[in-house]
Amino acid sequence: MDNESIRVFAPATVANVACGFDVIGLAMDAPGDEMIMRRSDKPGVTITAVHGASLSTDPAQNVCGVAIQALLQKYGQPDVGIELELFKNIPPGSGIGSSAASSAGAVVGANHLLGNPFTPKQLVRFAMEGERLASGAAHADNVAPAIMGGFTLVRSYKPLDITGLHTPADLWVTVIHPQIEVKTSDAREILKQKVLMTDAIRQWGNVGALVAGLYQENYDLISRSLEDAIVEPVRAILIPAFYELKVKCKEAGALGGGISGSGPSVFMLSRGEEAARKVAAMMDTVYAPLGVDYKIHVSQINREGVKITKA
Amino acid sequence: MDNESIRVFAPATVANVACGFDVIGLAMDAPGDEMIMRRSDKPGVTITAVHGASLSTDPAQNVCGVAIQALLQKYGQPDVGIELELFKNIPPGSGIGSSAASSAGAVVGANHLLGNPFTPKQLVRFAMEGERLASGAAHADNVAPAIMGGFTLVRSYKPLDITGLHTPADLWVTVIHPQIEVKTSDAREILKQKVLMTDAIRQWGNVGALVAGLYQENYDLISRSLEDAIVEPVRAILIPAFYELKVKCKEAGALGGGISGSGPSVFMLSRGEEAARKVAAMMDTVYAPLGVDYKIHVSQINREGVKITKA
Repeated sequence: MDNESIRVFAPATVANVACGFDVIGLAMDAPGDEMIMRRSDKPGVTITAVHGASLSTDPAQNVCGVAIQALLQKYGQPDVGIELELFKNIPPGSGIGSSAASSAGAVVGANHLLGNPFTPKQLVRFAMEGERLASGAAHADNVAPAIMGGFTLVRSYKPLDITGLHTPADLWVTVIHPQIEVKTSDAREILKQKVLMTDAIRQWGNVGALVAGLYQENYDLISRSLEDAIVEPVRAILIPAFYELKVKCKEAGALGGGISGSGPSVFMLSRGEEAARKVAAMMDTVYAPLGVDYKIHVSQINREGVKITKA
Repeated sequence: MDNESIRVFAPATVANVACGFDVIGLAMDAPGDEMIMRRSDKPGVTITAVHGASLSTDPAQNVCGVAIQALLQKYGQPDVGIELELFKNIPPGSGIGSSAASSAGAVVGANHLLGNPFTPKQLVRFAMEGERLASGAAHADNVAPAIMGGFTLVRSYKPLDITGLHTPADLWVTVIHPQIEVKTSDAREILKQKVLMTDAIRQWGNVGALVAGLYQENYDLISRSLEDAIVEPVRAILIPAFYELKVKCKEAGALGGGISGSGPSVFMLSRGEEAARKVAAMMDTVYAPLGVDYKIHVSQINREGVKITKA
């Protein structure tokens, strides 16, 4: 058995990209969780340490452990062991796919150590088990972009149907993470069970146009499509100064954006790094007087997903 | 003034392409309305004759007249006259864009006779006035594909925002037109004003995937995305043997399909002419015993829109 260590980088992700609520996500170049992983003589998953967040090292209580366990079960060789040390750089509860990054990194790393027996789609399934532990729902809208990179679309869960979308090279994302707590379960509870047909039609017109805009590399069309008539109006109240932030960021040159995942992070897309940095400066201007701690990330769209290097 | 005549071919179209209710349409190579048009010394619009359907030759009561009138008003030269003879090949009420073809052909023809002063998007606006006369609503989901060709997406009406979508060359459409009457107004009345959030999400996942499938030329993804969880279940009752038709056509090789416009026509997409013709044969098998008159059309997707030749 080869006991060589690998280093895994698993990117943060933005789910619920505006109109694409529950279906469209994207990956960031930074921040990301990191892991050192190797094969182990001890069967099953061993988590030797977690740095940067107080998370359990019990594999049954850690998304990395649960996700790898799902992979190993499918792999079907009971003596196989995977050892992992986790460096959490994405704070849990930030709304940029903290648990998804850990789950995604863990399964891509384990797959690599086993000689890549599984397809990306299978890896998404395993990582979704980590999401089930983290939030109670095995959703794919963060793990899919974390594993595949770029923009991804979850067409359906039954059966699971995920496709990568063309991702223009010059697209950047700026994210502000206000250090307040928004529970995914709370954010989901305030959603309405029914929506107006007219709003729903507007939403799927925007989703179609956003996908077309990505393929056409038509930044104006992308900008016009980044609209959410259904979820944002309900959830915006959870985020301090949301509308001011959105208006000012667009004035500063952002194409558009919205709530990342179920918040509290807010993302803005821009064409090019310079614009993305101007948007970051504007976020700073809006948030500085609020008396809320926050962190701002500027990143190109990550187009390769989880990355593995030698440790 | 040049009094040379032109011959205009304006294609039939399918609106409400499955999940893309109210937003995605496509153009057919056949059937289509035809027109002979020329500049005239008599200011305004003159309709010399309508063949193939009992429609008014009064320009204010004919979609061609109304659409050209909207164009001339914008053109702003009161002495300009356009003369038109209309050959209706698409039966009114068929659900494959009969009024849209006439409106689209009329404005593209008039624009040509004036030296093409207007953009396709402006022409769509003028043609929408014809649609307003025909159905009471100035919708664009038939006139946009009729003018632009291929698949089109109407992202928004306020402001009007239309984009052409990539259209794979090997995509064909088979349409059956049962000769029964379904009024657009009735078909719209039975729609619910509110829809379940879960259904709406499923719908916009499908819309995004359909657009991605068109750009990827991924016929399997197109097939899986041709699903309508919202409108089809309500309107299917208006069309004899709808579900049997759909199931059997898919068994015969269709990628999928649905109700064309507000019915009664039903469309099925296929990869390649051979498959489209097998689907046509299956439509015939299903409909022959029903005691309803019907007509079946097999056509490649039209990728150029309205076509002008010398008369």
